[in-house]
Amino acid sequence: LKIAVDAMGGDRAPDVIIEAVEGSELRDSVVLVGDESKLQGKVPAGLEIVHAPEIIGMGEHPTEAFRKKKKSSIGIGTELQKQSKVDAFVGAGNTGAYMAFATLGLGRLKSVERPALATFFPAKKGYTLVLDVGANTSVKPSHLLQFGAMGSLYVEKITGKENPLVALLSMGEEETKGDTLTRKAFELMRESSLNFVGNIEGHHILDGNVDVVVCEGTIGNAILKFGESVVEVIQEGVRNIVNTSLKAKLGGALLKPSLKAFFARMSYDEYGGAVLLGTNGITIISHGRSSPKAIRNAIRMAAKCVEENINSSIENRIKEFNQ
Amino acid sequence: LKIAVDAMGGDRAPDVIIEAVEGSELRDSVVLVGDESKLQGKVPAGLEIVHAPEIIGMGEHPTEAFRKKKKSSIGIGTELQKQSKVDAFVGAGNTGAYMAFATLGLGRLKSVERPALATFFPAKKGYTLVLDVGANTSVKPSHLLQFGAMGSLYVEKITGKENPLVALLSMGEEETKGDTLTRKAFELMRESSLNFVGNIEGHHILDGNVDVVVCEGTIGNAILKFGESVVEVIQEGVRNIVNTSLKAKLGGALLKPSLKAFFARMSYDEYGGAVLLGTNGITIISHGRSSPKAIRNAIRMAAKCVEENINSSIENRIKEFNQ
Repeated sequence: LKIAVDAMGGDRAPDVIIEAVEGSELRDSVVLVGDESKLQGKVPAGLEIVHAPEIIGMGEHPTEAFRKKKKSSIGIGTELQKQSKVDAFVGAGNTGAYMAFATLGLGRLKSVERPALATFFPAKKGYTLVLDVGANTSVKPSHLLQFGAMGSLYVEKITGKENPLVALLSMGEEETKGDTLTRKAFELMRESSLNFVGNIEGHHILDGNVDVVVCEGTIGNAILKFGESVVEVIQEGVRNIVNTSLKAKLGGALLKPSLKAFFARMSYDEYGGAVLLGTNGITIISHGRSSPKAIRNAIRMAAKCVEENINSSIENRIKEFNQ
Repeated sequence: LKIAVDAMGGDRAPDVIIEAVEGSELRDSVVLVGDESKLQGKVPAGLEIVHAPEIIGMGEHPTEAFRKKKKSSIGIGTELQKQSKVDAFVGAGNTGAYMAFATLGLGRLKSVERPALATFFPAKKGYTLVLDVGANTSVKPSHLLQFGAMGSLYVEKITGKENPLVALLSMGEEETKGDTLTRKAFELMRESSLNFVGNIEGHHILDGNVDVVVCEGTIGNAILKFGESVVEVIQEGVRNIVNTSLKAKLGGALLKPSLKAFFARMSYDEYGGAVLLGTNGITIISHGRSSPKAIRNAIRMAAKCVEENINSSIENRIKEFNQ
């Protein structure tokens, strides 16, 4: 098992990344990819480094970066996968760039029409996988069907849950609701071998009654990011409340440990990251603000995907679908 | 000033509605619309009632209801507007049905291509109007431009803020980001007289740096509903934490009043409701779970729209746009 980790990706790279890898039980399987001059003196002995002289910034245009920065940490990490020198790639940098390099550099899995970005949301009970959260800006019904298949398989492999429940995000729950895309995808999913439970509305995603929620990338991306900000606004609000009076400060002090743990669970950067499903490689993309713990979880997720041979399962499943 | 209020709409109708109207400073301007047999003995003397024998349930198909239930409270409320017997209609029932009756029964304002549903989100600073949150399932760039114009005017009229800042919800903030629809709408909005600030991503909606966020109905609906559920999940989580230990209970007791006030502000059903912009009438649609306070706010919003003559302003603005 070999996992490349982008040492240069993330708001506090490379320090947080190095700290994460150092403390990981999988550290011996990790290859750090990054600018050696920036890593020198920071990386503990024994950790493997592959040099990448260029860096892709958070604001850079993904496909342009793909064309021009082959020697970036993302470029080299992708190349290592292509040459089978590593089995997976983990990073907390420019999401679009990881997706561009994986999709254009590694290519799609056989019969997969569109890769999709999937991430777990913390629900009332357990976790719900939502996809696509931003790999695609416009899709066809058949793409949504494939997202359902890939998401279902991913949940099965990662959580061990058999035959996960799959829902389609829609405005209104009846099958006649939603736009043309959703209505057509509904039909395809109902007729497929997916354990399809029908439409779900935005306010039921977090109920924890389904395992996989399928949606368009623009919608998934909007709710993911909007949800993050709602959590932040509330956390900030609660923090302000605690500072309003002596009485409130005392109350806050008594509740602090449990509130902290709760908001950590609600914070979307604690789950390791999003997985790009459908390319000829395994790419886990963590939040730019990821903690070392989040990066370690991402490395674990990557390892699990390799062990479970997720990509050949996806190819087989999609092949079945097309028969 | 006359405002029709749907006595039968909402989870706890008619009681909550009657309580709301009774306590409203605008009660003398209100006409309650509903089934007299169900209102008998509950409505205080002096409140005007218009009988509507039929009821449209929360799960009913909107356009079907429009065809078959003209004598419903929604049908009669719309008819009262059409005959100019009332100036506005407020309700907490089936959102789709209010929209169908308003759009099909009252028709669109001159030059308005598509009505849009708009609602205020509680931001870090002040409030941000988001539209469309569910009136349309597929739109053209020109529709989004008109949403921007209507939303901008609404904010101007309701809050008094001049030349409100308008943003376009997109994946990625550069103008080259987003799908074809967003990119084309970006161009139209930039070239218009709107105070357009560019693209905004989902996690910046609540920052409070813009006044109006324009998006497709399916996306707006998803983030509105998802956001509501995030607030609920956190509120429930905090409630659970407070019950875990004696220490936490004490802390919770000290913080209870301020937490309660805070979550009330964050709760989307406290703002009166969403407004349907672009039809030949004024329709305010409140959340099914609305409190009496929310309904009273909705009645106030309706009154404000009438006073400010919002519809003729919209027609004039859209006409300017088309020149």
